This record gives sequence, C-alpha cells and structure tokens, in this order.
Amino acid sequence: MSDAAAWLDRALAGERRALARAITWIECRHGAIGAALAKRPVGRRDHGVGQPHVVGVTGPPGSGKSTFVDRLVTRARADGQRVAVVAVDPSSPFSGGSILGDRVRMERHTGDDGVYIRSLSSRGHLGGLSAASAEVVDLFDAAGFDLVLVETVGVGQSELGIMEVADTVVVILTPESGDAVQAMKAGLLEIADVFVVNKSDRPGADRLARELARAVALDDGPWRPEVRKTVARDGDGVDAVVDATRAHLAWCVGEGRERWNQRRAAARVRLYLDLVAEKARRRAEDALDAATREALGDGELDPHALAHDHE
Amino acid sequence: MSDAAAWLDRALAGERRALARAITWIECRHGAIGAALAKRPVGRRDHGVGQPHVVGVTGPPGSGKSTFVDRLVTRARADGQRVAVVAVDPSSPFSGGSILGDRVRMERHTGDDGVYIRSLSSRGHLGGLSAASAEVVDLFDAAGFDLVLVETVGVGQSELGIMEVADTVVVILTPESGDAVQAMKAGLLEIADVFVVNKSDRPGADRLARELARAVALDDGPWRPEVRKTVARDGDGVDAVVDATRAHLAWCVGEGRERWNQRRAAARVRLYLDLVAEKARRRAEDALDAATREALGDGELDPHALAHDHE
Repeated sequence: MSDAAAWLDRALAGERRALARAITWIECRHGAIGAALAKRPVGRRDHGVGQPHVVGVTGPPGSGKSTFVDRLVTRARADGQRVAVVAVDPSSPFSGGSILGDRVRMERHTGDDGVYIRSLSSRGHLGGLSAASAEVVDLFDAAGFDLVLVETVGVGQSELGIMEVADTVVVILTPESGDAVQAMKAGLLEIADVFVVNKSDRPGADRLARELARAVALDDGPWRPEVRKTVARDGDGVDAVVDATRAHLAWCVGEGRERWNQRRAAARVRLYLDLVAEKARRRAEDALDAATREALGDGELDPHALAHDHE
Repeated sequence: MSDAAAWLDRALAGERRALARAITWIECRHGAIGAALAKRPVGRRDHGVGQPHVVGVTGPPGSGKSTFVDRLVTRARADGQRVAVVAVDPSSPFSGGSILGDRVRMERHTGDDGVYIRSLSSRGHLGGLSAASAEVVDLFDAAGFDLVLVETVGVGQSELGIMEVADTVVVILTPESGDAVQAMKAGLLEIADVFVVNKSDRPGADRLARELARAVALDDGPWRPEVRKTVARDGDGVDAVVDATRAHLAWCVGEGRERWNQRRAAARVRLYLDLVAEKARRRAEDALDAATREALGDGELDPHALAHDHE
C-alpha cells in the first residue's frame, strides 16, 4: 500500500493529524491523495443523497463571512452534525505568502472533535485551487462529515469557480458592499442560492434586501434565491439562513434533482479539465531550464511563440 | 499574409473597428493575434522605457473603480495622452454571461479618438483571462497608446493575477470595505503600489488611511506604497493619485528598475505557463467525446483518474 493510501486510511478512521497531512498533500498538488481516493468506493455525495451538505460561503472582504461561518458551525454542532470548514485563502501571486488569521480565528471550537477547520492556500498556481477544493471536499465526504462549509476570502473570478463545488451557495453582502446592480455585475446573482444581507443593523440594509429580492424575482431559473437579513455578530437571523440552505438542499435532492445533477456533472467535467491544465502547467514548469526561463524573462523569447511550439 | 495579420495591420494603423475585432479574437482565444504580434518587432514595453504606462486598478465591488477610472481617463486626455481601458468582466462560471454595463458607462468619451474602452470577458475558461489581458496590453502597446488602464470588477485570486500585467497597481478601498487587516488578508498589501481610500467623505476614511499607512510602513519592500484619499465622484484627490502613479513609474525605470524587470520577467514566465495550461485544457476539451463526458458527469469515471491517464 502506498504511503498516501496508508495516511488516507488513518485520516478516514478519524485521526486528525492524518487528515491534516492528507490536506497538505492535496494543497501541494501531490496528486497522491486524489488517486488514492479515486480507488475507493465512490463517496456518499455521488449517491445523490445530499450527504454531506456542501455549503459555499462567498462575498467581498469585510462582509463578515468568517463570523457568519462561525455561527453556522455553532448551529450545526447544536444539531449534532459533524462539520468541516475549508477556508480558501488568497495567497499573493507575488510572494506566495498567506495570512493565517483564519486558522486561529475559530478557537472556540478547539477541542471539539466534531469540528475540523482548515485553510487551503494556493501554494502553487491559482488555477489549481478549485481542483484542490474539490479534492478536499471529497476527502471530508469520505471522512464522514455531515456538513462541509467552503469559505472564500474575496469575491472574484476564481472564488466563483471554487463555489462550483458547493451544493448550496450563500452570498454575503453588506449595505456598504454596493447595491444589487454591483452584485449583478459581479455575477453573484447567477451563483447565489441564498443571499444574506449581513450587518443589517446598518443603514441601507432594507433597501439592499428589497433590491436583491426584486432582482431575483426577475430571474426565471428553477430555484429562486432566498434573501435573508442577519447580524452575524449577534447571531440574529442565522437560523433563518440555515433553514433556507436546508430548504435548498431538499429541493436539490427532490424537485430540483435534474438541475442539481447537471450542475454537479458540469463541475466534474470542469474539474477534469482543471486537472489536465494543471498537469500540463507543472510539466512545462519542470521542463523549463534556466536558459529558457531567462530568455523568456528578458523578452528574447516570446511567451506566445514558445507556448505555440510547446509539444 | 494571414487574415489575423491583415486585421492586426489595420488595427495598428489606428482603425478602431479592426482593433475591436482583434480584441474579440484574443478574447475568444483564437491565438492568431498573439502569434501575429509575436512576429513583429518587440513592443515599446519590452524596451523598458515605461511606454505605455500600464496601470492596474482593482478593489472590491462598490469601491467606485469605474468612476475612478473615468477620472483617470479625463486627466490623461487633458495631458494629451492616448488612453486605452480594458475592463476585465466577471462572467459567471455557470452561464458564461456578462453584464455589459461597463461598456456603456463611459459614454462621455464617445467620439474621442484618443480613448479606447473595451470590456474583456472570459468567454472560455477563467484560466485564460490573465493571458488574454496580457495579450490585449501588448496590442495596445503596439497600437501606440500612452496609458493603458486595466480594471477588474472584483478583488479575488484571479483579479490579483490579472494585475501582474500592470507596471503600477492601484488598489481602491472605501471606509466600508473593511479595515487594513482585511486588506492584508486579501493579499492587497503585497500587490498595491498606490492605495486609494475612495469615498473619503464618509466616516472611517481617516482611520482606514492611517491604518494602511501604518501597515505599509511595516513593509520593508523596495517601494513603499503611497496612500491617498479621494472622492472620485467629485474628482477630489485624483490628481494626487496620478502624481503617485507617475512617481511609481519613474521609480520603475530608475532606481527600481531591477525590481521592475524581475516583476515583468516573472509575469512573462507565468504568461507562458498560463498559455501552455490553456492550450492543454482546450485540447482535452476538444478531445472529450460525448460518452466520456457523460461518464464523467455521472461519476462513473473519476476526474482524477482520467486526468492521471491523460497523455
């Protein structure tokens, strides 16, 4: 049995250190965990029973996502669910560094074996982060978690891509994060299953909630996103959001199953293409000798021409 | 001469319709424009004279980027510069749709031949957007623009990647978009050459500006980012930002040249790897027959295993 498969066994048996190690391997794009997972009986998710429920939480910086996710964790624990959180960290494209604040922020759950919290950063290239997220979700599935929360830090192109892994997407906005038109421009209307107007004790919250409700009413999709107001800091409104996410999951495995299946199928095809692209990138990077790298950097070699000649 | 080369000639001769068409080709990942550009004498940028000055503008939705960019355009025109704007649009990963508000927003410059404004959306896959942006910048370089503004809609992983194409990165925040810690967490401190606190007539602006100034003072990088306050709606403070971006460019081609060269070299290597990855993705997608696609979607075939076997 390979090293990865042995660690995976220990991770799936509930050993937290082994779980941590498996995720680090995924993060570093080793590929070994994905391969070992692929050899196992398919996860519960693929049986379409909505287990685990994968909830994505996204929104602009400062919208209170971390506090909100913390509330969701507390609520899930009160309901007896085992919950895993993967916080997708933005590493700088220049330094590769990552601020680890999120890793320590939910200290209140430390020592609770029913909660596993982990940041996932893009050690390698950005392109691999949605593939890595999907792999981590598969791992949490196999490890028997009931609820998996996937949180992003910003809201941008790749964050939206990461949300593809979720069954239910919660988009958090605040009165200050712009109006409904801004949200539309950012493509949020098309990915949100539930809108949360957080910090709703501030001026403008009602207006934003009304605008969002009007915008979603125009959408003739099969699921009309719910709009909820919260003050996550105080826990206000969080239960109603939980109800909305659960209603969405019930819809996914019931009336909306065809749509849900389509969404998951598209995500799987996309994951495959992501993995192929990532593999080609790594191979090209490994094959890049110092002289070629320098000639590329100097502008002597044109990136397009070189890529065109590649293979 | 190929069709692309002929269109490119017309675009570089100043024909706007040909320029539009060339950009659409880039957007749709035809590859022909990049290849045709690569056969030409290297652009001015590669001679390291800071021409055109490529300024990236990023920040969360609602921070007022569009208004700010509009102000920069007006100022550049007053200074006699030819200016091109590329607004990188977030297409939904699900629908591929894109809200075209940005294309019409700067109507006041319509009819001014010294201004060219264009949205760039991710028609294909996200991964290709930073490569496409770099290609469009090369095109604007060859077409003789003096200033190229690259604007993103959100602030996330791929938006930061897109900023790699810029000489000078302006990060716009507002008092409501979170504190300096949030900005650090989002990796903004490492990419910003100039911080703008926009909507600075609102409460909290001074505090955010002070926090940012303190945070950049801790950074011992070779260029200490400037922090400026603006009310872009009224034009207040915009000239000071322009001064800061020009000071940064002067530093880039002077004292900071080594650093600037490193940054550009890294961006070129990254662009090459992006192009290779994109090419592999397209090839895999083209090769995906209906049966395999369905088996992937159903979960019969595992994405990791299939990618592992690929080639």
